Amino acid sequence: MRKINLGLIGLGTIGEGVFKLLKSQKNRIKKIYNIDINLVKSCDISQSLGKKLKIQKKFFTNNYSDLINDSNIDTIVELIGGTTVANKIAIDCLNSGKNFITANKALIAKNGTYLHKLAEKKNVHLLYEASVGGGIPILNSIESSININKIKSFYGIMNGTCNYILSLMSHGIDFEEALKNAQNLGFAESDPTLDINGTDTAHKVAILSRNCFGFDTKIEKFHISGIEDISKIDIEIANQLGYKIKLIGVGKIKGDKVDLRVHLALLKNSNPLANVNEEFNAILIDSTNLGPVMKYGYGAGMMPTASAILSDLIKTLSYYKSSIQSLKKYSSFSIDNLKSKFYLRLNVKNKPGNLAKITSLFAKYLINIEKILQDSQNEEIKNVPVIITTKNTSYKVINKVIKQLDKLSIISKNPLLIPFED
Amino acid sequence: MRKINLGLIGLGTIGEGVFKLLKSQKNRIKKIYNIDINLVKSCDISQSLGKKLKIQKKFFTNNYSDLINDSNIDTIVELIGGTTVANKIAIDCLNSGKNFITANKALIAKNGTYLHKLAEKKNVHLLYEASVGGGIPILNSIESSININKIKSFYGIMNGTCNYILSLMSHGIDFEEALKNAQNLGFAESDPTLDINGTDTAHKVAILSRNCFGFDTKIEKFHISGIEDISKIDIEIANQLGYKIKLIGVGKIKGDKVDLRVHLALLKNSNPLANVNEEFNAILIDSTNLGPVMKYGYGAGMMPTASAILSDLIKTLSYYKSSIQSLKKYSSFSIDNLKSKFYLRLNVKNKPGNLAKITSLFAKYLINIEKILQDSQNEEIKNVPVIITTKNTSYKVINKVIKQLDKLSIISKNPLLIPFED
Repeated sequence: MRKINLGLIGLGTIGEGVFKLLKSQKNRIKKIYNIDINLVKSCDISQSLGKKLKIQKKFFTNNYSDLINDSNIDTIVELIGGTTVANKIAIDCLNSGKNFITANKALIAKNGTYLHKLAEKKNVHLLYEASVGGGIPILNSIESSININKIKSFYGIMNGTCNYILSLMSHGIDFEEALKNAQNLGFAESDPTLDINGTDTAHKVAILSRNCFGFDTKIEKFHISGIEDISKIDIEIANQLGYKIKLIGVGKIKGDKVDLRVHLALLKNSNPLANVNEEFNAILIDSTNLGPVMKYGYGAGMMPTASAILSDLIKTLSYYKSSIQSLKKYSSFSIDNLKSKFYLRLNVKNKPGNLAKITSLFAKYLINIEKILQDSQNEEIKNVPVIITTKNTSYKVINKVIKQLDKLSIISKNPLLIPFED
Repeated sequence: MRKINLGLIGLGTIGEGVFKLLKSQKNRIKKIYNIDINLVKSCDISQSLGKKLKIQKKFFTNNYSDLINDSNIDTIVELIGGTTVANKIAIDCLNSGKNFITANKALIAKNGTYLHKLAEKKNVHLLYEASVGGGIPILNSIESSININKIKSFYGIMNGTCNYILSLMSHGIDFEEALKNAQNLGFAESDPTLDINGTDTAHKVAILSRNCFGFDTKIEKFHISGIEDISKIDIEIANQLGYKIKLIGVGKIKGDKVDLRVHLALLKNSNPLANVNEEFNAILIDSTNLGPVMKYGYGAGMMPTASAILSDLIKTLSYYKSSIQSLKKYSSFSIDNLKSKFYLRLNVKNKPGNLAKITSLFAKYLINIEKILQDSQNEEIKNVPVIITTKNTSYKVINKVIKQLDKLSIISKNPLLIPFED
């Protein structure tokens, strides 16, 4: 019987899930794996969370150092989130020669390289399966794949809140109502900013970039946009064209550059990602030999995430220690150079001649228009939505056109620009 | 540096892939894993395959016993297929204390329990990731999931040949032409019987049943039907109804019974499996805590399969040995008791009154008809296809109706009965 002596820091939603799962699966894991997972001590700044889980006083502390300094503990699970205290815990934990397991994507995105080097130096495990895709064991697959195959690209739907909102909107529900709905069901946080604006997805993209390509970067260095500007009309028109609009995170090797980005995209109905609905996540990874492999499942939630933490716990007994590939000298591919077909919704001031000005500006910049849709039956309204789909052009060029239109006061409000991703 | 000393038996397509991958990835695996995979000797009954791969005489044999008796070899990879010689090799290999890795689904479906017990007794690894889903690492995921979560069901598209044919048919191509096309592209064997009639999928279902539920059964014990009877009209009508027709393998826990079956099914367009096209496979597994998780990728092919073999090879160095769960006392759920909506295509003899006879028979057996479609504009033709979709009924009852219709000589040829799977 092998033993894991565990210290658990953070008893919020995920921490509670881990606590419960450890309890309910203890015997099963003993029987199947011959492993005894022993929860030595739990820690939270809030005493009341310890009480809620009926943890005896001697097994609870509100000072994480008690766990770091406890020589009986060999593995720490951190579930407090954030990047200041959590980072200190990670460093203290690894320095004290203990394995460190976390669901903290912001921490790993920001400081993963440093922590990996520290873990290697101390010959302990650093594991964070739960940080990308919650219930989808994606990092484990990447690891067992990357040693045999070269990963060429990943792209996926990595934020359940955004995907839930987009799914609801495709059933005719407004953004605001869909968001409220997601909050009521617990899919969206009370402050959903980091989900909605793409930051959460960007953290996952940064982690995947490091683990798939060995390319370490900050999220500030690549394009991130969210779902704030989408409206029902966009989803309806995409649908008519045979597409779904999804918030995707992308990573692609392009020669000696890595193309990383987070944005809305139009995906063909036949694309496996197009039919990933509600709060589900999915990530598609393309590699040599294996070809495209997609994983689909719950990206978040108490029990799926807790389940990923438990997998990591069992992995700490493996002789092989996850490490990042030796980092490679890639440079960043700028989204400006992205060539694509585009969907553009402009709010055009309802004035004769404006449409002609728009189309001639497209012509001037050599952008071929594929379709143009305008509904100005109502001559009273001030602004008319005009939707244009283009043939291949670059992000840089179409943005120039948009700036010109803005300068000429032809359009009002933010235009919505979405690339097709095929 | 840890070492794996390998004997490779079978140098057909997959064997060639493994041979090539070992060569090209040797240094990568050394560097990342600190593992040296050393191919000690290869074996094939055909000398010419050895020559084709330029294997020196001293590293080649046509007698597999040379590998079994070679004390330098610790791991055997078997890629000859079939269940007689391959079974003998497996038993000899395990008995001699060597790890055994195979892509042979028929062998594992049939004799996996015995081989697992032998491997456990001898304390060696028995691994067969490549046997289910080729490039999709499904067994590995099940293993890391099952120890934490209870698997409730699996269902999936597990045969690339059938899925490719169905995909082509959905573009208006005939069955025969689609099959030829698949053969030309190498997706279908020259004798595709075992793919087309569902046997290949059934082998995978039997393996998944053992690994997911601990339920060991023979494929003869559950319902298997293939894609032979489908025609373009079925796919067209399903499409009009908002469904796709796929060949699926199913496993579901129902109380103390296990529901295993292989058959065509109508899947709603929004079902993630409905949009798995061409030669791709996908398997959806639902478990407690994790919820539904789907994996999608190439189910077969030289390099995806070889890649799975290599993963297994690396796994032989893990301290934890895959084992089947202690087998459980489930009994089989008979498809007769399956309750579902059904799609039924009858070839009805073109005679006045026949349609009335059919509908009254449905009424007699209390089956509610949802839709009925008949196209008998052409009064000359002998048989008219009549398509009926039903509300919920059981497989047993609707089959009784079909038998009655046959007895009354109202229908000719085989009727096609497909359940809706939601």
